[in-house]
Amino acid sequence: MTDSFRVAFLGLGVMGGPMAGHLAKAGHGVTVYNRTAAKAEAWAAKHKGTVAATPEEAARDADFVMMCVGNDDDVRQVGGAAMQGMKAGAVLVDHTTASAEVAREMAAAAARRGLAFLDAPVSGGQAGAENGVLTIMVGGDAAAFEKAQPVMAAYGRSVVLMGGSGAGQLTKMVNQICIAGLVQGLSEAMAFAQQAGLDAHKAVDVISKGAAQSWQMENRAKTMLDGKFDFGFAVDWMRKDLAICLNEARRNGAALPVTAVVDQFYGDVQAMGGGRWDTSSLIKRLRR
Amino acid sequence: MTDSFRVAFLGLGVMGGPMAGHLAKAGHGVTVYNRTAAKAEAWAAKHKGTVAATPEEAARDADFVMMCVGNDDDVRQVGGAAMQGMKAGAVLVDHTTASAEVAREMAAAAARRGLAFLDAPVSGGQAGAENGVLTIMVGGDAAAFEKAQPVMAAYGRSVVLMGGSGAGQLTKMVNQICIAGLVQGLSEAMAFAQQAGLDAHKAVDVISKGAAQSWQMENRAKTMLDGKFDFGFAVDWMRKDLAICLNEARRNGAALPVTAVVDQFYGDVQAMGGGRWDTSSLIKRLRR
Repeated sequence: MTDSFRVAFLGLGVMGGPMAGHLAKAGHGVTVYNRTAAKAEAWAAKHKGTVAATPEEAARDADFVMMCVGNDDDVRQVGGAAMQGMKAGAVLVDHTTASAEVAREMAAAAARRGLAFLDAPVSGGQAGAENGVLTIMVGGDAAAFEKAQPVMAAYGRSVVLMGGSGAGQLTKMVNQICIAGLVQGLSEAMAFAQQAGLDAHKAVDVISKGAAQSWQMENRAKTMLDGKFDFGFAVDWMRKDLAICLNEARRNGAALPVTAVVDQFYGDVQAMGGGRWDTSSLIKRLRR
Repeated sequence: MTDSFRVAFLGLGVMGGPMAGHLAKAGHGVTVYNRTAAKAEAWAAKHKGTVAATPEEAARDADFVMMCVGNDDDVRQVGGAAMQGMKAGAVLVDHTTASAEVAREMAAAAARRGLAFLDAPVSGGQAGAENGVLTIMVGGDAAAFEKAQPVMAAYGRSVVLMGGSGAGQLTKMVNQICIAGLVQGLSEAMAFAQQAGLDAHKAVDVISKGAAQSWQMENRAKTMLDGKFDFGFAVDWMRKDLAICLNEARRNGAALPVTAVVDQFYGDVQAMGGGRWDTSSLIKRLRR
């Protein structure tokens, strides 16, 4: 049994909603804020939590403020407002996938107010959030991490401090860069298998035991072949994440030639009307 | 205990040598041929086999002729010569990674002589050959496959008939196409992690539990980071295989935009003197 705290959760989307639910289930007193208030009301009714009208109000008296919003601008706006309400010594944990730059900016602003800020993007998707088994990649102060880690454990199976402010976001970028090239390679292979007249499902079974194996092959190759894309991680979100990666690479000088091309390919998928399709929909623009 | 046969093995390279050894260990009478005769003599001394001076001589009286040579031209030359010596009803099994075109050509030539030909490229690398745990992707006649399968089982853990002549080669191409995009994505991610100043080894540990996971990540990410490339599957071989994939795609109309670019990147690695480096050496051309 871990200690119970007063925790605020800002942003009850497909990730934040279930994450906040796990906090309530773990015995913390949870106050929620969501831009669309009806969602917050529904969440609070289900989980016996409290609704706040603004981020400041939600954050007041909280020991920890968790946030899971859309992008850098949301982090600045919602996080900035929350900091207005937070008490000294409280910790703001941002689960948004955002830039390392905004993480450092927020950490500096927090420090000026006697608060701590952790950038803590997650992987594991909606299912990971619902089952409380997310991977959480954290950047920031070690003492703040020590305090927040048991709270994040409510929905994180692997919660790791990667370094100073921004290191969590940078690790998430490494993850997304791996996936971009990998999914494109898998798409080319699956489209080739079909074009060559192979039994492509059988080919996947045969090659998935060796050096071509991947989580994406095991979980997406057959749905790709079957043309199922109405689930998973949306192309619009992936493009947002790849923009963050490409901007960071422009800053730190890393070369991302294939990642940059795959980002363009995802633009093709968006133009096909596939912004909400799963990232494995790259195969659709290869179909002949 | 399976029946024992008279088996010829043509081509005792890093793959063929240990594969032929497993046939001898399984109790088959093995006759070997190798272009460089000294290798054949050494193999025969170790495994109590017989050496033949030519492919024809090796193939004479054999129930099965296995072959593992370099490329399409070698398959035509060595396989064509073997067919001159083979008795009616015998099966020629080609473990070379070659084109689907040469597989169909050889199968037609075999049929004209009352022989059978199976294209049977392998994956699993040198370690897979040495441990007798290769994946074997087979194309050709089902009856010939039924006969040859128990013999191939001496060194194959997964031996699968994928379809008619050429289907084994096409499946191997699907495997290599997956790997090309995947290894490039992983290389960009690892170079980015280092350029960003992350603890890249730790980042690999964290992300290898999720959607970015792959065999390549588990087996090559850390050697990439450490700059170790003097092992594994050589860039020269990968370029040979990718040329086969790109030629086949030109024929069947499949689009391989990233595979084509990664093939060019491997050309850069060759120009850096890295033809014998492992395929994970793609990261070297990204280093800043």
